[in-house]
Amino acid sequence: MRKPTPRSPVLPWTKPPRERTPMKALVHDGNGNIALQERPQPTLQLPTDAIVRVTRSTICTSDLHIMRGAVPHAVPDTVLGHEFVGVVEEVSADVTRFKPGDRVAVNCETFCGTCFFCQRGWVNNCEQGGWELGCRIDGCQAEFVRVPFADNAFTRIPDSVSDEDALFLGDILATGWWGARLAEIEEGSSVAVIGAGPVGLTTMMCARLANPGSIIAIECDPHRAELAKRLGLADRIIDGSAPLDEIERAVQDLTEGRGADSVIEAAGGDATFEMAWRIARPNAVVVISAMYEHDQALPLPRMYGKNLVFKTGGVDASGLDEVMALIESGKIDTSCLISKRYPLNDILEAYRAFEAREDDCLKVVITPWE
Amino acid sequence: MRKPTPRSPVLPWTKPPRERTPMKALVHDGNGNIALQERPQPTLQLPTDAIVRVTRSTICTSDLHIMRGAVPHAVPDTVLGHEFVGVVEEVSADVTRFKPGDRVAVNCETFCGTCFFCQRGWVNNCEQGGWELGCRIDGCQAEFVRVPFADNAFTRIPDSVSDEDALFLGDILATGWWGARLAEIEEGSSVAVIGAGPVGLTTMMCARLANPGSIIAIECDPHRAELAKRLGLADRIIDGSAPLDEIERAVQDLTEGRGADSVIEAAGGDATFEMAWRIARPNAVVVISAMYEHDQALPLPRMYGKNLVFKTGGVDASGLDEVMALIESGKIDTSCLISKRYPLNDILEAYRAFEAREDDCLKVVITPWE
Amino acid sequence: MRKPTPRSPVLPWTKPPRERTPMKALVHDGNGNIALQERPQPTLQLPTDAIVRVTRSTICTSDLHIMRGAVPHAVPDTVLGHEFVGVVEEVSADVTRFKPGDRVAVNCETFCGTCFFCQRGWVNNCEQGGWELGCRIDGCQAEFVRVPFADNAFTRIPDSVSDEDALFLGDILATGWWGARLAEIEEGSSVAVIGAGPVGLTTMMCARLANPGSIIAIECDPHRAELAKRLGLADRIIDGSAPLDEIERAVQDLTEGRGADSVIEAAGGDATFEMAWRIARPNAVVVISAMYEHDQALPLPRMYGKNLVFKTGGVDASGLDEVMALIESGKIDTSCLISKRYPLNDILEAYRAFEAREDDCLKVVITPWE
Amino acid sequence: MRKPTPRSPVLPWTKPPRERTPMKALVHDGNGNIALQERPQPTLQLPTDAIVRVTRSTICTSDLHIMRGAVPHAVPDTVLGHEFVGVVEEVSADVTRFKPGDRVAVNCETFCGTCFFCQRGWVNNCEQGGWELGCRIDGCQAEFVRVPFADNAFTRIPDSVSDEDALFLGDILATGWWGARLAEIEEGSSVAVIGAGPVGLTTMMCARLANPGSIIAIECDPHRAELAKRLGLADRIIDGSAPLDEIERAVQDLTEGRGADSVIEAAGGDATFEMAWRIARPNAVVVISAMYEHDQALPLPRMYGKNLVFKTGGVDASGLDEVMALIESGKIDTSCLISKRYPLNDILEAYRAFEAREDDCLKVVITPWE
Repeated sequence: MRKPTPRSPVLPWTKPPRERTPMKALVHDGNGNIALQERPQPTLQLPTDAIVRVTRSTICTSDLHIMRGAVPHAVPDTVLGHEFVGVVEEVSADVTRFKPGDRVAVNCETFCGTCFFCQRGWVNNCEQGGWELGCRIDGCQAEFVRVPFADNAFTRIPDSVSDEDALFLGDILATGWWGARLAEIEEGSSVAVIGAGPVGLTTMMCARLANPGSIIAIECDPHRAELAKRLGLADRIIDGSAPLDEIERAVQDLTEGRGADSVIEAAGGDATFEMAWRIARPNAVVVISAMYEHDQALPLPRMYGKNLVFKTGGVDASGLDEVMALIESGKIDTSCLISKRYPLNDILEAYRAFEAREDDCLKVVITPWE
Repeated sequence: MRKPTPRSPVLPWTKPPRERTPMKALVHDGNGNIALQERPQPTLQLPTDAIVRVTRSTICTSDLHIMRGAVPHAVPDTVLGHEFVGVVEEVSADVTRFKPGDRVAVNCETFCGTCFFCQRGWVNNCEQGGWELGCRIDGCQAEFVRVPFADNAFTRIPDSVSDEDALFLGDILATGWWGARLAEIEEGSSVAVIGAGPVGLTTMMCARLANPGSIIAIECDPHRAELAKRLGLADRIIDGSAPLDEIERAVQDLTEGRGADSVIEAAGGDATFEMAWRIARPNAVVVISAMYEHDQALPLPRMYGKNLVFKTGGVDASGLDEVMALIESGKIDTSCLISKRYPLNDILEAYRAFEAREDDCLKVVITPWE
Repeated sequence: MRKPTPRSPVLPWTKPPRERTPMKALVHDGNGNIALQERPQPTLQLPTDAIVRVTRSTICTSDLHIMRGAVPHAVPDTVLGHEFVGVVEEVSADVTRFKPGDRVAVNCETFCGTCFFCQRGWVNNCEQGGWELGCRIDGCQAEFVRVPFADNAFTRIPDSVSDEDALFLGDILATGWWGARLAEIEEGSSVAVIGAGPVGLTTMMCARLANPGSIIAIECDPHRAELAKRLGLADRIIDGSAPLDEIERAVQDLTEGRGADSVIEAAGGDATFEMAWRIARPNAVVVISAMYEHDQALPLPRMYGKNLVFKTGGVDASGLDEVMALIESGKIDTSCLISKRYPLNDILEAYRAFEAREDDCLKVVITPWE
Repeated sequence: MRKPTPRSPVLPWTKPPRERTPMKALVHDGNGNIALQERPQPTLQLPTDAIVRVTRSTICTSDLHIMRGAVPHAVPDTVLGHEFVGVVEEVSADVTRFKPGDRVAVNCETFCGTCFFCQRGWVNNCEQGGWELGCRIDGCQAEFVRVPFADNAFTRIPDSVSDEDALFLGDILATGWWGARLAEIEEGSSVAVIGAGPVGLTTMMCARLANPGSIIAIECDPHRAELAKRLGLADRIIDGSAPLDEIERAVQDLTEGRGADSVIEAAGGDATFEMAWRIARPNAVVVISAMYEHDQALPLPRMYGKNLVFKTGGVDASGLDEVMALIESGKIDTSCLISKRYPLNDILEAYRAFEAREDDCLKVVITPWE
């Protein structure tokens, strides 16, 4: 049963050195300005690196935060972007699971796979990684990108899955999947998801896989709420702009008076933290997957005896093979999130439309330079 | 293998009706005043009730809160007390697991065992129960007490276990045990316990059972800190009155720079919530088993990426048989908590000494009326 | 949050005493003979009993075993049948969750809910229960049936669910659901189910809910195999009558050479136990949910190092509310199992057709006496 | 919180090339013969290798099997031995966690850490590893040994832990620890361990850490049974040579008539498999950690309804840091297993004494060549 063959030294096949003409890339200055620039193509630097030719990328709300200087550890003058798929162009010596020509989705988190945190699956706190791409090192809104720890970062895209089908795997889909897992959803239970934006919607997609009795979406934007309903992701929608007392009562009415069995807060708004714990039933799990700009009050005396569990943080998604398998089998389909496509040439226009939520824009796709 | 005998109708044996002479009981007025009064002996009211003759009881910090009127749902003019052991005197028709003469420890939580929450082990939120004894109905600082849902509330005391050995089972030991379980302690890991009062000490006792690499106790009172060390409950002690930065650094120095793997906050002080999350390593579980008088700030932006899990609430301890087994085998010994004994006649003096922490008082024991 | 209302004594409403005319019932003699007889209607005997008017029942393979005398603890001259739904007719004093007029599905296992085993969810080993109905006490192939521990045995049928939709809940659907749970199926993994009869098919339905990458059905009967495929329950089918080496290779070809991640053996044939462990990958969970007539060889030296986990036994399904929720939401639909309907008058004919697998019969439904 | 420093290329420090004089080593011919020979010192071959100078080794029962030719995949003319500690002498380029001079305990399993099985902790089925040392490649009963995948195989020995304290970590202690974990022991429960030889005793040591109510040891050899009792590892002992019915009854008498909550079979004798499942209570976990020479009968019809879980296989122990922490803290102490010491010069005599169980020998220690 065991395969006793000693590990033969791996000699990864690499294409003859590429001609390194300059490439186009979107760069920010940390002061609210972004510009398309010519940059040298990235090169392999560490033994675990790979170079990827970007075939599809997208813009994330956190790109807006970075460009405005609101993310402290982000480094100005780097290439933006961390959500993308592409084709492996070159690999360093220690990359053994992928080779040039492979189509891959890329995890937005960089992780070594061997430190204390990685061994436990907590890759977001990797001692040599974390959120690097498009934040502390050059990202994917360019023609090529260098990816550290490529064996860990990549997920192979099967032939039957298109680039766009796999585009969101590494960030917002991973986040939705991780949030739904944290929520400990039981068959037949009630799940409340606060926010029906891109992350809220992927959260509902993944929450559905656990066969809850119902998913309740709470969202202020009527178009997004409606979409969640129409796509069959939410069974019930509640207007998130209603008074909190009313929202609390509406959730209780849908849950035999108890409150939701699981709550996932994917909005990060001013009132949504309080909403999250108030609509939860006693002993519920409340997942805070949204990023917050402000501190929140935790009214322990008032919630004493409610025995809630709060799970906070940024996405810990190390093993995305199983999520790709769900895409391949058709159980997860994120094509509904794509509102419009722009070639890299027009990425400034894409930023504008995304930020303005023009035509109810959810996500834009950036296609290669034309 | 199965035992096919149909359930025969149970005819519980009851002693001939007791002569119901008045009894002594400690009653509060919700205005800070307590008094020993004569009260009629309690009688069976519901089919799941039992009457217990109290052999040992104790005073809990929450008794002080109630007597001062600080617990909103507490009812004035009731008998105080919810932590005790005794002998079963009488049982109603539906009590099948216990009979008069049995020595029992009593759970401070009243629970039906069959509602949505009880079925899941969340007895603190029982739809027909919760914290009743000594709060909403007459408690145990008296000669006799009526206990609802007696089959659920009682844990049999084995012959080799004394009344005092079992005295804390139903409240502070249950709380320590529940808090330690919530903390998901792994073998060889580091556990920080904030507070070395009665609950902090039982928490350490129970945390030790999970074989952590080290337990770090953080406590302001040097006598209590020293006791935790001397009893072998804490491997390291840190002065809780030091500046928070210093405490954080001290914990990091003891944990390879990462912070504690599990944190249990059993103090409920002004700075201890912030201390709890700051001394936790990324991805730690932080259990808040203390009761708080004030809201706390949850600085989500600052702790983003730290990926903490917070577990809050009041003790959910339904199955105390296994904790009793640990007492019986000598793995848990709470005799170190007993500072002084008073007969029920002198309970007013006992309250005074307990509240004043006279002679470093941890817990007092109330013995029967003499 | 807590509801402090003390439990008021429950006075269950009962209809005025029914007129107890004789009823029709199918009785066996333990010698291979069955007959429709007139029997007195059952009456309440214990405080937890209920009487159910049977609206739909069905025949199970184990009924055939019992009638032939192959089930040692089965009692001759009892009414057969344990898989059914109906309407509550009468309840004893301690039945608090159901009342006359309620539509209910009935668990084939009888369990007290409070013994050592029941408290842990192992109702099949209940100290006062186990497989009673249609085996040791009168069963459901009759107009009325007495059900012990009715509060535990019943699952309410929602208005939107028909009797036939709920018919299999208490036995073969519970078994499929329990088997799939035991199998610890992970998202994207491979699941092999041996046998595509009624239990094999419900097993696949429930296994699908865990979002495996693929379900491989192994079945000798081409009609059943084909059905599993056509219903979308199995992704791949393998002919179970092929040589074992060939089957093993076929499974490996579908699982990257490793063998199936989970195996559920629902056939109980002569070669299927060996098949189960051979098609499993190392460290797989192998669930044996089938009933066996013969001992099996466990070749520990040969399978040493394969590190398999075997889970054996009879269905432990205590909480069927969530499975009913899955029926209600349309995630489980067992209507495909129903091959033909017979009124109770013609139940002898139904037995014949079921036993002979006439017209590829899977399950027959017994409707009320006409 | 994150440490963004990019991984700097690691340049492991190596001592100047050792002079490679021949060394002494114990070699077998697969025909029952062993001999001390001169062999060239091992050299680094693969990028993950390390060379260890052996400071303490021991003999395992499986060495006897190998030398007799009873282990099919064992290769004659290799150096025997797989249970040892030592000092790192040299490391290859990819070994980053250890350096020459480090004191280490060595896992008897060789594993890559990255394959399908290793990622799930199932290192015994590593695609590039498994049981290699002293079986398919040269082992540790020599002055030096080459260890593949050294970063995975090594556990650092703290200063306060002696070589002998750590000697059994990599094999019999790992096995005991893994077996006890598989057994899902709950606080206060009953655990039966069959066999009180070296593995049985380490199993009891590790089972105790889970705070069972009692450990019942079943053993034929009165000296070993007595030792288990005297060391406080077993609460009760049962004579394993008694008739099986009697043993079954004795276990029931100690477990309220139910059978043991967990059973660990560490003997591998002719009757011990049947004993294991018969002394288990319904729904118990039965761990088979012993190696068997013969197939066993699995009487499924007779055990139907008992709902047992069987876990079989060879030790899967990837993370031994926490076990080392337990040694360091004094919670595990294996010094009681050491019966006698022999220098490598006298290893033939050590084999003789070990095989003959001379003077009730449990384990012998081989010290360096003198």
